[in-house]
Amino acid sequence: MSKKPPGTVLVLGGARSGKSRFAEGLVVESGLDRHYVATGLAFDDEMRERIARHRTDRGDRWTTHEEPLDLVGTLSRIDAPDRAILVDCLTLWVTNLMMEGRDLAAEFEALTALLPNVSAGLVLVSNEVGLGIVPENRMAREFRDHAGRLHQLVAASAADVYFVAAGLPLKMKG
Amino acid sequence: MSKKPPGTVLVLGGARSGKSRFAEGLVVESGLDRHYVATGLAFDDEMRERIARHRTDRGDRWTTHEEPLDLVGTLSRIDAPDRAILVDCLTLWVTNLMMEGRDLAAEFEALTALLPNVSAGLVLVSNEVGLGIVPENRMAREFRDHAGRLHQLVAASAADVYFVAAGLPLKMKG
Amino acid sequence: MSKKPPGTVLVLGGARSGKSRFAEGLVVESGLDRHYVATGLAFDDEMRERIARHRTDRGDRWTTHEEPLDLVGTLSRIDAPDRAILVDCLTLWVTNLMMEGRDLAAEFEALTALLPNVSAGLVLVSNEVGLGIVPENRMAREFRDHAGRLHQLVAASAADVYFVAAGLPLKMKG
Repeated sequence: MSKKPPGTVLVLGGARSGKSRFAEGLVVESGLDRHYVATGLAFDDEMRERIARHRTDRGDRWTTHEEPLDLVGTLSRIDAPDRAILVDCLTLWVTNLMMEGRDLAAEFEALTALLPNVSAGLVLVSNEVGLGIVPENRMAREFRDHAGRLHQLVAASAADVYFVAAGLPLKMKG
Repeated sequence: MSKKPPGTVLVLGGARSGKSRFAEGLVVESGLDRHYVATGLAFDDEMRERIARHRTDRGDRWTTHEEPLDLVGTLSRIDAPDRAILVDCLTLWVTNLMMEGRDLAAEFEALTALLPNVSAGLVLVSNEVGLGIVPENRMAREFRDHAGRLHQLVAASAADVYFVAAGLPLKMKG
Repeated sequence: MSKKPPGTVLVLGGARSGKSRFAEGLVVESGLDRHYVATGLAFDDEMRERIARHRTDRGDRWTTHEEPLDLVGTLSRIDAPDRAILVDCLTLWVTNLMMEGRDLAAEFEALTALLPNVSAGLVLVSNEVGLGIVPENRMAREFRDHAGRLHQLVAASAADVYFVAAGLPLKMKG
């Protein structure tokens, strides 16, 4: 009856590229129960505003899970074949892991080990951040490296990968 | 007789990606009267040099209109079915609007309301700026957001959208 | 017997996009003798680490040439039809030329004059750096301009051009 997205989908894009809206569309089209995993921490007003605006934009047919760090545990816990899960976004998760001094290699390994076993339709949104000038700040360079490495890992096991610009999806894989 | 570009074309690209040259080619190929709307303000020598170099590169078969702020009014005024109009570029327009404290939402709305009614071949060039690290500067973050939002709006009503890198166009829509 | 890559290949991508690995794959698939031209200078520990890690990742069936400045001379010297040469990367070469105050226009001209005459399979890797916010630092802006100009020049004479994101190649030309 319900249409399941074929495995994991990675949606990459820049700031304000329309990547979240496109990813939400994939979940809606799946016809499955809509779950939203928000990795963003509302640590200031600007962020609180963005999160509130995103929530309003999505409407109320979504179950929201706020989880800045334990993405892998959350996905394991809420996974079910009648659900589509949108994770928005991987780059904020990476930021939070770095801020808390977590072992990113271990987290990435746990996520990539989990992906092939997820029964839900899973759509992962992430920011492409590696196409500007090398940042002067060392932490920003490390963040860029972590994000890029994670994108490669996830893309390798994803069924579909999209690059979104100006609201338009470009299929890179699938 | 003359070949008209099919509606609005959006040409996105990075710095020195060849986007302006590609966009100029679209206008030249149209066979229509060539009009150039320059949104850049020559506020320093570096900028004056760039503008002069661009003008020399284009050659003298173009009518140039310098308009940092009233893009919508200028397009309305110079619109004609025997013309192809190149706007270079939207991101500089956004910068100028921000500098002057204008209402960007209103300007974007006016532009998107105008686009379907333009009778000229219209080619809009813009910088994709959202694929690097989140800027530390709040104004830069806002600029990125405005630019991204505008790209989505224009892309939605454009007939063709290109992403240019290394001088090579990648068709995203059309 | 051996399979030669059809002329020059340009591989563009962001930081940690998987561009080097993809480029290495092209060289390995060619079946030719593998030569690696490293343009990076190990001026600090972070860089030394990256270079060492890259070398370990490649394995020992490669002949490595370290050349921060004289890329054109090195390519002329090691060129041979039974070889595939990987240059990693053009953007570090541009950085080094700028640091040493070299004439970049002359170097770019020499490289583009050489490319059609190279008998080896040649794979050039470079960072796309022009898709973020305009850098505040003038040298960074100049670097971005030089890199963009070089990419256009090389892409124009390359047989194949790829844009790599998340480890996935997108063919822009060829």
